[in-house]
Amino acid sequence: MTTILETIDSPCDLKGLSASQLEQLASELRAKIIAVCAENGGHLAPSLGVVELTLALHRVFDSPTDKIIWDVGHQSYAHKLLTGRRDKFATLRTLGGISGFPKRCESPHDAYDTGHTSTSISAALGFAAARDLRGERNKVVAVIGDGSMTGGLAYEGLNHAGELNKDLVVILNDNEMSIAENVGALSNFLNRTVTSDFVHTIKKDLEGFLGGLDKIGHGVLKVAKRAEESLKSLFTPGMLFEAFGFEYIGPIDGHDIGRLTETFEKIKRFDDAVLIHVLTKKGKGYPPAEAKPALFHGVGPFEAETGKVLKGKGGAASYTGVFGEAIRKIAADDDRVIALTAAMPDGTGLTAFASDFPQRFFDVGIAEQHGVTFAAGLAAEGYRPVFAVYSSFLQRAYDQVFHDVCLQNLPVTFAIDRAGVVGSDGPTHHGLFDLSYLRHLPNMVVMAPKDENELQHMLKTAIDHDGPAALRYPRGNGYGISLDQAFQALPLGKSEMLREGNSGALLAVGSTVYPAREAAETLAADGLDFSVVNVRFIKPLDRDAIISLARATGTLVTVEENAVQGGFGTAVLELLEEEGIEGVKVLRLGYPDFYVEQGEQPELRAKFGLDAPGITERVRAFMRS
Amino acid sequence: MTTILETIDSPCDLKGLSASQLEQLASELRAKIIAVCAENGGHLAPSLGVVELTLALHRVFDSPTDKIIWDVGHQSYAHKLLTGRRDKFATLRTLGGISGFPKRCESPHDAYDTGHTSTSISAALGFAAARDLRGERNKVVAVIGDGSMTGGLAYEGLNHAGELNKDLVVILNDNEMSIAENVGALSNFLNRTVTSDFVHTIKKDLEGFLGGLDKIGHGVLKVAKRAEESLKSLFTPGMLFEAFGFEYIGPIDGHDIGRLTETFEKIKRFDDAVLIHVLTKKGKGYPPAEAKPALFHGVGPFEAETGKVLKGKGGAASYTGVFGEAIRKIAADDDRVIALTAAMPDGTGLTAFASDFPQRFFDVGIAEQHGVTFAAGLAAEGYRPVFAVYSSFLQRAYDQVFHDVCLQNLPVTFAIDRAGVVGSDGPTHHGLFDLSYLRHLPNMVVMAPKDENELQHMLKTAIDHDGPAALRYPRGNGYGISLDQAFQALPLGKSEMLREGNSGALLAVGSTVYPAREAAETLAADGLDFSVVNVRFIKPLDRDAIISLARATGTLVTVEENAVQGGFGTAVLELLEEEGIEGVKVLRLGYPDFYVEQGEQPELRAKFGLDAPGITERVRAFMRS
Repeated sequence: MTTILETIDSPCDLKGLSASQLEQLASELRAKIIAVCAENGGHLAPSLGVVELTLALHRVFDSPTDKIIWDVGHQSYAHKLLTGRRDKFATLRTLGGISGFPKRCESPHDAYDTGHTSTSISAALGFAAARDLRGERNKVVAVIGDGSMTGGLAYEGLNHAGELNKDLVVILNDNEMSIAENVGALSNFLNRTVTSDFVHTIKKDLEGFLGGLDKIGHGVLKVAKRAEESLKSLFTPGMLFEAFGFEYIGPIDGHDIGRLTETFEKIKRFDDAVLIHVLTKKGKGYPPAEAKPALFHGVGPFEAETGKVLKGKGGAASYTGVFGEAIRKIAADDDRVIALTAAMPDGTGLTAFASDFPQRFFDVGIAEQHGVTFAAGLAAEGYRPVFAVYSSFLQRAYDQVFHDVCLQNLPVTFAIDRAGVVGSDGPTHHGLFDLSYLRHLPNMVVMAPKDENELQHMLKTAIDHDGPAALRYPRGNGYGISLDQAFQALPLGKSEMLREGNSGALLAVGSTVYPAREAAETLAADGLDFSVVNVRFIKPLDRDAIISLARATGTLVTVEENAVQGGFGTAVLELLEEEGIEGVKVLRLGYPDFYVEQGEQPELRAKFGLDAPGITERVRAFMRS
Repeated sequence: MTTILETIDSPCDLKGLSASQLEQLASELRAKIIAVCAENGGHLAPSLGVVELTLALHRVFDSPTDKIIWDVGHQSYAHKLLTGRRDKFATLRTLGGISGFPKRCESPHDAYDTGHTSTSISAALGFAAARDLRGERNKVVAVIGDGSMTGGLAYEGLNHAGELNKDLVVILNDNEMSIAENVGALSNFLNRTVTSDFVHTIKKDLEGFLGGLDKIGHGVLKVAKRAEESLKSLFTPGMLFEAFGFEYIGPIDGHDIGRLTETFEKIKRFDDAVLIHVLTKKGKGYPPAEAKPALFHGVGPFEAETGKVLKGKGGAASYTGVFGEAIRKIAADDDRVIALTAAMPDGTGLTAFASDFPQRFFDVGIAEQHGVTFAAGLAAEGYRPVFAVYSSFLQRAYDQVFHDVCLQNLPVTFAIDRAGVVGSDGPTHHGLFDLSYLRHLPNMVVMAPKDENELQHMLKTAIDHDGPAALRYPRGNGYGISLDQAFQALPLGKSEMLREGNSGALLAVGSTVYPAREAAETLAADGLDFSVVNVRFIKPLDRDAIISLARATGTLVTVEENAVQGGFGTAVLELLEEEGIEGVKVLRLGYPDFYVEQGEQPELRAKFGLDAPGITERVRAFMRS
């Protein structure tokens, strides 16, 4: 039997469907999304939450003439299925397959690429301003979650949009969550809805207010002030957005297609900035995801029937998990240690810490800039804050790392997870630039552990260091090696020699140390006898060790999971120049100067020659040349 | 006669002063600030605006036990005069003198270093959280302007602070300006004050509201909704901050010391988060600054009597001015060109553009992140936005440059002013990292013009380029050379040979090209015959030219006004490694790996060996070694 979904090749095909056919299509979309996510992993819960919203948007608006901009974009699976990518949907998030995020290169219906949060209002305002300059009439719609609203960029966009008052639709997709529970005064406030209790409060407050008005002759300002006080509790989310210059509509049920289409039809005729507050449920329609929306926010392969998440092969602890345990241990002995996350307590491994040390744990919301500056304030008062953050998200606080932490030389630790390629989330999420964007900042110490055991000692090193320090480690599991129980601070700027050889030296950073050692063994069988150094410190460099290896062997190969521009290999070139050492052959291995696509970590490492066979082959070729 | 100011060695000395003595002291502070700014230049208008506020703060709170955190910090001159730096105040902003911003290394009364906007609430929250962990009772006060409130970081801080509800005082210093006129819905809204008109509106709205309540049996939600509509106009700034979880007090007159101290005494007993809305006048008490607060925001030396700003020597046009004229000319022929600034229409040279092309000019407020993402939206729709921004402030949008512009390969031009050392504003404002933080981003073109004429052609090059492009140019005047009337796009990645010699090649970037050429002439007299190359493109490099010079002479000297880590010189090292060219002697000249202090541009260039004599001397020493 042909499903309705099979008849939808573009959003136009939705226009003729009946209400019950739309309901049926919603079910089919859910089934398809669940089936593919069960296989490939993906952002299941966010995408399930907006199935009806997506249908209503494409029913009412005319994409691609009208522009729909998905904030973060991980909720765009139904959108992809409805816009000509049904047949490719099984390749979601795989190497060469379609992206888990909107991509302009995939479809004209993907108006704007996203991946990081809080960009949609600003981008949509750009689209709206462009439309007006051109004198066209198309609609522009930004769909943004309440979690993304905690990012300062969203506020900057709202503030400017309210001032310009363009024809612009912002849909606030309010599921009361970001990835985990939401954070911040705003989210508490959004929950304030209009109930009969609320009306009762209004009546009560009004008595005081009217009392004030009666005495209006006695001084307008004083009375008005009192009136304002009594009106405080009347204040609703709608009024907040009105204050920013938006028309406000809502809250409305985000799973009621009829109500949604009716509302969109109505506002389609407006030409002001409108905010529609839509209430949705993360994971809607799939009981395991409704029950555990944080787990199913971004999930690996699972059993579709039961929602049982399939474990990766092997039981080695993840770097994230080892970090989470290590910071708990250090904090137990050192009450200066404070842990911070930007809306990712689970993803960064801090859940147990939060429960052990609730007073010393802060989830700042999706607000990396604030997280860094808040940490700087704590550090200025003698604490040792540890900000656990993904590499690509710390990019959002580059200036605060510069201005608040490094310039004041404050002891903030950056525990940078997801450094290197991250896999299926692709280019917005790979952590391939942190060595380049941190290494040039004065006062910063930058480290990378070769394995999960060394991560523990490096965390201790960073926390003990009386200045800014970063340690970066990859997504995924460690090697399953035994974990030392006592942590020791490593000597700053000292590398570790793992293998000695005369043909040259492999200087390897973090996740590339084990592959480099393996490569060295293979090369040795060919008669190429390489030293292998676990670099440990990207800054400060182990100058003495690198110089003496350069002098001894004349050949250095640097290996890192970072862009080859400005990273560790580059630091080695700088060192040789500073020391005036000439005639050293250097080969720098890392990721090239373009955005690396999505794919499993091993696939990408193989493709770019950063696994053991790749390193072996490239060194061999280098030595032949 | 001894002034009162001469008796104030620390804030304690304020406690015994009478009201009239405080007024007198306010006058003395103003006189001192005006006199020193007239001599040294400085942030006159912001500092004059908070004289009474500063006196009241130090009268009531006990610094340094209580912490006062000045957002941006350019308004801290009275604070510096009252906290033991009276005698050094004449050295304000000079090489080796005291900073124009708070510096922890200067005084325990400077609780936290600032310079960039919107950090104070986040930092203060860190101080408050640290205090609570320690079980202490001191107060923490953030002083933030309404301009800084448009930055997303301030909102992130407010949102988290409202949730934590720490004992925290935020003083909103509302002068209805940032540097220029304020921007954004929030600022329009802040102007909504309680007047008798306002009360009239309340009465009118109430009729509708009460009508709703009468019919309360007919459906609570519907009625409440209608009530909400009629209450919209009752909404005041106070309610906005209450929504964020702050107690709100104000607005109060920020020049009334009595009223301020009374209010501070009162809230000193609170232990919740409080926001005090204070109205001040930028430039207060100095008529020229009151009349032209934008001009006197940050001003060079002027005649104290008249307020006449003293022109620098020579009439050469500034880079900023040439940029402003060039973009006007290009925009006249190319209606895709749109100009953006983040609250600095004057500083970036866009005032005339704004008046010629009001539809194609956007001041986004102090919101660099939004500026970049908004530009990406415009570019996605076929426009050619040019974001004119200072180098150190573009740092605040590093992730948006990565995620919104470079990843989508969108044609946004970054016109980066104040690249290199900027002078008296010091390390927070020097633009010494842009080459390092932009060069590693895929798809980005990075240029620097050797003089103001080339700037014009580079702007054309950037706008014509079908992808992201940055051009960076220094603060200050050009060389007074004649300006071509027709602009031509330069060939991408091609340098310009200015002088040919056999001893080696000086590869010079932007502002260092003329000094390098001068150095080459001096060196020639010593028998060192250097080529001089105007690099033009930091990315993509002129690979062929650099390689052939390396092969021909064996000696390359790179010169740039950027950190020596990760900059242009480093790119040359990378190129030599990629090409496998060994045995080339390379010397990289730039700024070292620490934060460069304040001082006049020529002083700093001389100190760090980047003027013609410095380059000459360092090349000479290099060739001797």
